[in-house]
Amino acid sequence: MRMFDQIDHIGIAVEDLEKSLDQWRKMFNLRLHGIEEIKERGVKLAHLEVSEGPQVELISPLDKNSPVHKFLQKRGEGLHHVCFEVEDIHKALSTFQNKGVESIQDKPQKGAQGSLISFIHPRYFNGVLIELKQKKKES
Amino acid sequence: MRMFDQIDHIGIAVEDLEKSLDQWRKMFNLRLHGIEEIKERGVKLAHLEVSEGPQVELISPLDKNSPVHKFLQKRGEGLHHVCFEVEDIHKALSTFQNKGVESIQDKPQKGAQGSLISFIHPRYFNGVLIELKQKKKES
Repeated sequence: MRMFDQIDHIGIAVEDLEKSLDQWRKMFNLRLHGIEEIKERGVKLAHLEVSEGPQVELISPLDKNSPVHKFLQKRGEGLHHVCFEVEDIHKALSTFQNKGVESIQDKPQKGAQGSLISFIHPRYFNGVLIELKQKKKES
Repeated sequence: MRMFDQIDHIGIAVEDLEKSLDQWRKMFNLRLHGIEEIKERGVKLAHLEVSEGPQVELISPLDKNSPVHKFLQKRGEGLHHVCFEVEDIHKALSTFQNKGVESIQDKPQKGAQGSLISFIHPRYFNGVLIELKQKKKES
């Protein structure tokens, strides 16, 4: 079984979600799939659909405790993370752990659109924050 | 006609290409498509294939004049750019120009694997460096 099928989306940290949204939509003709607040993670997300393949996800902080607020203060706006879709997030995390790569949280948490996600610390992958996202089960 | 079909690859700036390559391949079971030096741009690239969708491109500088060397000095290793495939790069650049968005170079230049590419300055897109890549013509 392949563990990592594809990149699900690319996350971009922005100060002002609505304003940034307009620019991306206008310039790339992307379709807005939806805006979502995830209070548990302190983020507001906009999902922009590219015709095929990975989406573009714009992320802004809900408050000053949000990890995205800290990211913006330290690095400014820009590319924030890459999300890989995985068949089985628990299995993927366990495979990573066996190879000495730890996730940031103890266990998977609630992600966008009811998904189950986990983040891997940037120190393992050349400064790149990796999100793993459980593939939706076929209904 | 859709102008932007899909994300072609995600570029990640790294200090040591070979060492970084090992970690990405080992952890994600990615297939190495090839390593390529582009002297005109001062970069060495490794193309890693994900099962489906966009590739991961690791980039290291060939010398101290490379823009990637400057990026690494300023920001450190990490996500460097996102590349969108376009049907017609000249048309895409002209559409951008009409909307006030300028490319970094005057005209498209040589990219990886004989492609024609152009970069859009990060100031237009929330600090994200955008690469446009001409879609290969069907033979």
